[in-house]
Amino acid sequence: MEVTVQQCCDILGKMDDIVILCHRNPDGDTLGAGFALYYILAQLGKRSRIECHDEIPAQYSYMLLDYKKEDFEPKAVVAVDIADEQLFGDNLEKYRGKVDLCIDHHGSNKLYAKNWIVRDTAAATCEVIEDICYGFEEVQLTKLIADCIYTGVSTDTGCFRYSNTTGHTHAVAGRMFKAGCDFVMINRAMFEVKSFSRIALEKEVLNTIEFHFDKRCALAYITKDMLERTGAIEAELEGVAAMPREIEGVEIGLTLRQRGNGYKISVRTGEEVDASVLCGKLGGGGHRCAAGCFVEGNLEHAKEVILKTAEESFKEESE
Amino acid sequence: MEVTVQQCCDILGKMDDIVILCHRNPDGDTLGAGFALYYILAQLGKRSRIECHDEIPAQYSYMLLDYKKEDFEPKAVVAVDIADEQLFGDNLEKYRGKVDLCIDHHGSNKLYAKNWIVRDTAAATCEVIEDICYGFEEVQLTKLIADCIYTGVSTDTGCFRYSNTTGHTHAVAGRMFKAGCDFVMINRAMFEVKSFSRIALEKEVLNTIEFHFDKRCALAYITKDMLERTGAIEAELEGVAAMPREIEGVEIGLTLRQRGNGYKISVRTGEEVDASVLCGKLGGGGHRCAAGCFVEGNLEHAKEVILKTAEESFKEESE
Repeated sequence: MEVTVQQCCDILGKMDDIVILCHRNPDGDTLGAGFALYYILAQLGKRSRIECHDEIPAQYSYMLLDYKKEDFEPKAVVAVDIADEQLFGDNLEKYRGKVDLCIDHHGSNKLYAKNWIVRDTAAATCEVIEDICYGFEEVQLTKLIADCIYTGVSTDTGCFRYSNTTGHTHAVAGRMFKAGCDFVMINRAMFEVKSFSRIALEKEVLNTIEFHFDKRCALAYITKDMLERTGAIEAELEGVAAMPREIEGVEIGLTLRQRGNGYKISVRTGEEVDASVLCGKLGGGGHRCAAGCFVEGNLEHAKEVILKTAEESFKEESE
Repeated sequence: MEVTVQQCCDILGKMDDIVILCHRNPDGDTLGAGFALYYILAQLGKRSRIECHDEIPAQYSYMLLDYKKEDFEPKAVVAVDIADEQLFGDNLEKYRGKVDLCIDHHGSNKLYAKNWIVRDTAAATCEVIEDICYGFEEVQLTKLIADCIYTGVSTDTGCFRYSNTTGHTHAVAGRMFKAGCDFVMINRAMFEVKSFSRIALEKEVLNTIEFHFDKRCALAYITKDMLERTGAIEAELEGVAAMPREIEGVEIGLTLRQRGNGYKISVRTGEEVDASVLCGKLGGGGHRCAAGCFVEGNLEHAKEVILKTAEESFKEESE
């Protein structure tokens, strides 16, 4: 059943011994929402704990300041920022069909929970968590809760840059400032700090960049060898895939990553070309400005296929 | 004389044929403030034009959408975001001592104008311009004015990341969203697009990075040869100087740029070391987290001197 913020608070108010589920490959929004909710529940005198398929990455450790992981038999389950039960990972078997409340902002939410609040106009689940915090008269918006909520809105909007950012997102950020959130530390941890392996990989990727179609297309690639040499892990590749499109005048940025028997290709585009249409031609998909597809075969072949498809897209555009 | 926002509006209301001065090496805040003021004055039926020592960089061209550069003998001069007349550049001789009104946010403003409004709690001069816009009942906050004001607050705060950002800054941004500002295009132009020469330079600088003191210090350098090879210009070096400090665990980031008979050294630090103290030992200065100094001699010598000073700073810190 769909619930309002106040109904959501009523439901939480009746719960105890609560498991808060975060999605696999956790990001700032699922963790920010999860830990903010933990601290809200703690102020209400309720026992809860975070569960996630993956370990919590070190850069989010500031969220755990007052967190005590307690052992208890759960009586209630709340999922935050999880659109689909498949994202429970190893927790799927244990919690499938057993989520009492889902708090989310993905329009694609599968509505798998008994109760849900899914606000698809919110840039981050943490925007909904803020309202839940205000829904309890006895709960204070502490600095720690503000740090968690700010992290969610900042990371899910690429520091207020992505098109999902709204005036409301800025208003939330402003209120977290009032509550004393440490935005300088958070944004440095989220956006500025690069690992040694990431730096090494960037160097290698920069060396692969080539230009096509009058420099309106830039292509870079990452082979298994490069990953081994630099020690970079999957989570570090995201920003790297954006690099070709960051070059001036580039309308189509392509990043090819070797995987299995071929190459996974990330396509980023500007205003002119629709990335999801381009990738659709090769059996992939995604959004207007960011999409992906997979091409079997070696690097030369994958390059040839994707460049031919990119060329078609340019031609269609100019028609 | 110091003036309030309303007095500022009264003064502007009595002016006509106005030169709006922006500072040399213009940035998003001086241009955003300048063009927003131009469009405000245009709505009031007043003639004005922007003057600046340098050409307006191409990435700000969206601000010029409805701008017409008109030729007239100025009857009034307004300086925006200019703390010191020296920043007039080639316009110094023409306008020194002749500024009727200065609108700024630098606490270091030399108060050289006949009238001034200097709000040092504002992250950007554009925050003051917003209030001036509201000070005229007959002026509408158009999308174009919103684009200009948003540019100022976003660029002067590094997209809401620097410590000068306040809750008020976010509130201003939220209001510019309501007025329809194109924040996606603006932030891409300001923060994401890199020139070919900048990409080439980054590649070379990454190759120079070396670590010291248990990887708590990272050092990179830029020689005249590297600049010539890549074609990178001064304005492109700013982000590059930040690179060493962006690596995980690095407390002191050092970037040495060859200049004249030695090296200009940019020092960026984290929480532990005071960059201005470190640079002060070598005759330089700056802020707590970002400072600079100059060391004469060749690269080997400059490295030796700055690394020795950095080592001292680490020792003093641990005492």
